[in-house]
Amino acid sequence: MTRLARYLPIFEWGRTYDRLTLTNDLVAAVIVTIMLIPQSLAYALLAGLPPEMGLYASMLPIVLYAIFGTSRALAVGPVAVVSLLTAAAVSKVAMPGTSEYIVAAITLAFLSGAILLVLGFLRLGFLANFLSHPVIAGFITASGIIIAASQLKNILGIDANGHNLLEIITSLFEHLDEVNWITVIIGVTTTAFLFWVRKGLLPLLIKLGLNVRTASIVAKAGPVAAIFVTTLAVWGFDLASRGVKIVGDVPTGLPPLSLPSFSMDLWSSLIVSAVVISIIGFVESVSVAQTLAAKKRQRIDPDQELIGLGAANIGAAFTGGFPVTGGFSRSVVNYDAGASTPAAGAYTAIGLGVASLFLTPLIFHLPKATLAATIIVAVLSLVDFSILKKTWKYSKSDFAAVAVTMAMTLTVGVELGVTTGVAISILIHLFKTSRPHMAIVGQVPGTEHYRNVLRHEVIVDQSVLTIRVDESLYFANTRALEDRVYDEVAKQPDLKHVILMCSAVNAIDMSALESLEAINERLDLGGVSFHLSEVKGPVMDGLNGSGFLDHLTGRVFLSQHQAQTAIGAVTT
Amino acid sequence: MTRLARYLPIFEWGRTYDRLTLTNDLVAAVIVTIMLIPQSLAYALLAGLPPEMGLYASMLPIVLYAIFGTSRALAVGPVAVVSLLTAAAVSKVAMPGTSEYIVAAITLAFLSGAILLVLGFLRLGFLANFLSHPVIAGFITASGIIIAASQLKNILGIDANGHNLLEIITSLFEHLDEVNWITVIIGVTTTAFLFWVRKGLLPLLIKLGLNVRTASIVAKAGPVAAIFVTTLAVWGFDLASRGVKIVGDVPTGLPPLSLPSFSMDLWSSLIVSAVVISIIGFVESVSVAQTLAAKKRQRIDPDQELIGLGAANIGAAFTGGFPVTGGFSRSVVNYDAGASTPAAGAYTAIGLGVASLFLTPLIFHLPKATLAATIIVAVLSLVDFSILKKTWKYSKSDFAAVAVTMAMTLTVGVELGVTTGVAISILIHLFKTSRPHMAIVGQVPGTEHYRNVLRHEVIVDQSVLTIRVDESLYFANTRALEDRVYDEVAKQPDLKHVILMCSAVNAIDMSALESLEAINERLDLGGVSFHLSEVKGPVMDGLNGSGFLDHLTGRVFLSQHQAQTAIGAVTT
Repeated sequence: MTRLARYLPIFEWGRTYDRLTLTNDLVAAVIVTIMLIPQSLAYALLAGLPPEMGLYASMLPIVLYAIFGTSRALAVGPVAVVSLLTAAAVSKVAMPGTSEYIVAAITLAFLSGAILLVLGFLRLGFLANFLSHPVIAGFITASGIIIAASQLKNILGIDANGHNLLEIITSLFEHLDEVNWITVIIGVTTTAFLFWVRKGLLPLLIKLGLNVRTASIVAKAGPVAAIFVTTLAVWGFDLASRGVKIVGDVPTGLPPLSLPSFSMDLWSSLIVSAVVISIIGFVESVSVAQTLAAKKRQRIDPDQELIGLGAANIGAAFTGGFPVTGGFSRSVVNYDAGASTPAAGAYTAIGLGVASLFLTPLIFHLPKATLAATIIVAVLSLVDFSILKKTWKYSKSDFAAVAVTMAMTLTVGVELGVTTGVAISILIHLFKTSRPHMAIVGQVPGTEHYRNVLRHEVIVDQSVLTIRVDESLYFANTRALEDRVYDEVAKQPDLKHVILMCSAVNAIDMSALESLEAINERLDLGGVSFHLSEVKGPVMDGLNGSGFLDHLTGRVFLSQHQAQTAIGAVTT
Repeated sequence: MTRLARYLPIFEWGRTYDRLTLTNDLVAAVIVTIMLIPQSLAYALLAGLPPEMGLYASMLPIVLYAIFGTSRALAVGPVAVVSLLTAAAVSKVAMPGTSEYIVAAITLAFLSGAILLVLGFLRLGFLANFLSHPVIAGFITASGIIIAASQLKNILGIDANGHNLLEIITSLFEHLDEVNWITVIIGVTTTAFLFWVRKGLLPLLIKLGLNVRTASIVAKAGPVAAIFVTTLAVWGFDLASRGVKIVGDVPTGLPPLSLPSFSMDLWSSLIVSAVVISIIGFVESVSVAQTLAAKKRQRIDPDQELIGLGAANIGAAFTGGFPVTGGFSRSVVNYDAGASTPAAGAYTAIGLGVASLFLTPLIFHLPKATLAATIIVAVLSLVDFSILKKTWKYSKSDFAAVAVTMAMTLTVGVELGVTTGVAISILIHLFKTSRPHMAIVGQVPGTEHYRNVLRHEVIVDQSVLTIRVDESLYFANTRALEDRVYDEVAKQPDLKHVILMCSAVNAIDMSALESLEAINERLDLGGVSFHLSEVKGPVMDGLNGSGFLDHLTGRVFLSQHQAQTAIGAVTT
């Protein structure tokens, strides 16, 4: 049972399911369903796919996540950044609007799902760690800008495309003479209205006496109101005949059974994108899930989350969907609306099923400009330049990583942006740890403390050199250590002893061990003996097993003070 | 003057040059010249180039290194591993024996030189650190095996080729019916003789009363004796007409002025190989130079070494040579023979110049099998499988890196072998630091010490959780920290305080800072306050500037004991 519950968390919360929980979940499901309808349509549009695929991608995936996922409030479905990544990946292999494009999107969901499942079964969730926070923040901000820019064509009623900001802007300018002014009026009004709903309506409702929770849920229904009004307007005034682009015919019915392609050519074209989508989706999802879980002191299991999200994406691939992940806004609404268990997600799926069975004819006249407006308002909340300021202040190297990630994402594209970001963070980390802080230390008079000679008034014995390294020793920084030791030794002709103070050394890898052997040997050639002090337990265990101590010309001391007392002339 | 001396070390040692130094240098030069003649010819053969190019590559490069390099004893010229890398790189773009092949080798020297110079001027020598010791050791051992295998064809007198062990062995078996038995006799006898010189002659000479230094120098002349005897034999019995392959016509004269190609196509095909050659050559050279410098308590400057080696390679490119670096055996001979300054290198160059002016007709009948034998004997001393045993015992992850490097080098090729090795070491490092050692600590009764609850009998307060992380906090391990903290908090319902003990934290990057902010915020949602203890000075400076402390629900304590005393109920 416990073992089963590990892979199927449903057995954990399912046992205590009662009427109160059911009511909570049902209320949450109704609210989330109303919010998800426009959002799903809009993200399908963003991914370059038919609107109904947004609905399909929100049904089975939610249910599968409810069975396999560990977060009680996470709502899985299409989200802005993953939809943008999908568009970028799929348009490399097919033209938007073709059936190949749809098959490629479905296949991408399948590959992402497979990757997530494999990572989950191998418990490799830690791989997501290589995406540093600043890189993600920069990437999401840059993606938000690209998404907003890409939707301007729908607000202006023109054709334009491109996968980075430069391409999109160029393309918009080229088509600027085709602007449809009625579309512009719909688009701009809707955008303004949705911004007002976000910023103005909520305080107003609270002032009118609604409590904060109800008010914020009502405010989330803003897009539905916008859809209702603009659809009516387009239908009533027959604006489609005047050039306003509408959603048009959306098939009625439950999600179809779809199959991903098993063409190796297509797989090899999509696999890198699938990796990027899986990791970005996983990181975004886990971060949302952890925030929500913390509020109730619940816990989520990141490796099991991989399985939940993997199942959701495989589900999307077989029911006409596209890559999905846990979305921030829908999860927060779900949580705020009182969802108690993942079953709320299942009820949401039923709600969306009802909508796609009966409501799709009603959105025939829905203008694309309205959907674009909902996307723009949603993604502009992702745009946050404060990470640049924060990193600039705290760490220039993190700033460099963010700046490069944003610049690459905006000017070249999303995939290269995020992969460059990862590569740069790793290089910066290696660079920093390859030049560790090292200090020559001396004794603080009258104490057993040893401090940096440059910062403190300390006593130094001319025949003993003590170097403290403030970093674990590994291949990238062994040369820096060797260089420093040889430099200091060359400077001090009277030297008889070198002590390496290891209080900050958490690990010594094989390269570092060989460097220590080389230092020991080379110092010996010059008649200097080599000692270690303050070696930590696990490090000492390693040294004991290595034979290093057999050749060591000096000794290993538990504390620096013992070393100094045993070796040099100290004032006690 | 000091500034000039930094880039031109010749001004440093040149000022104190006197008659004694001159004598020492001249003696060393004569000995090294005699040893270098066969070695240079052999390595040119290994690189697939005409033998005279080996001589050319040993002249101007030595002089340029003498001017720009910092090691007093390093001898620069063709070396085995770099010659193998040259063959691998150049045969990708041209057929051995063609003039394109020669131009490509010259261009490769030019590109390697340019890369080394750029790295030197930018003081980027630390990049070489990313080659971990075990990876280099594994790579050199595997390269030694490939080199020895590649020379078997010359011992057998057949044609065979290939860039990895599998290809070479397959090719040897395919041509086994063409074996020339006279060549085999010459090759095997010479190889056996040279092994005896190395293992048997040296002890014999010492027994006969020579001192160790003289004996080892005489033993180094073994290859010259072998060349003399086998050349005479081939000439005397006209063995060339019986199928023994000889060196043949070697042009007489000083190195020609040559020009690298400036074709961008060729450059882009060679640039990756040039990077690999530069880094491998640099690492090998610095390691030799550091060992020799340590014996006299001199120092070398790795960044200046880049400039010295860069100049040497540029010199090779303009005088008909191919990529060079500081070689181990020749440098040791140079040192043992008493070379006092880099001027010894310049005299060696003069000696080689005299040889290529007057001696090349004498080696017309030199059998290639003799050169192959000198290569085999030289490289088999590079082969050392003990690194596998050492790493297996000390660190399984380092073992994995070596094993993969060796396997890839032997089965796929040298370039992919070494690049895979670098990638694997970096991944392993990231993997290890992404799962740092963390311990829940408690108070050792009656003391101010706090230790791991799993290892010691300690007192733990149920309302306070103290976690010690034994690693700097950065993007790769922040999630592990968050997961652990949330797990522990979820397990202990009575918890009121979490203390993060930072005694082993040398740095906190922006990702980790944001993780700490997230932990602080999420713990606050659950009514738990978050404290830090034992934060190091530089880390504290960073936190002070970041605004993190403004939001911290708890406090920062200098010591863990202060934290425990202030927060919990402690036994004192």
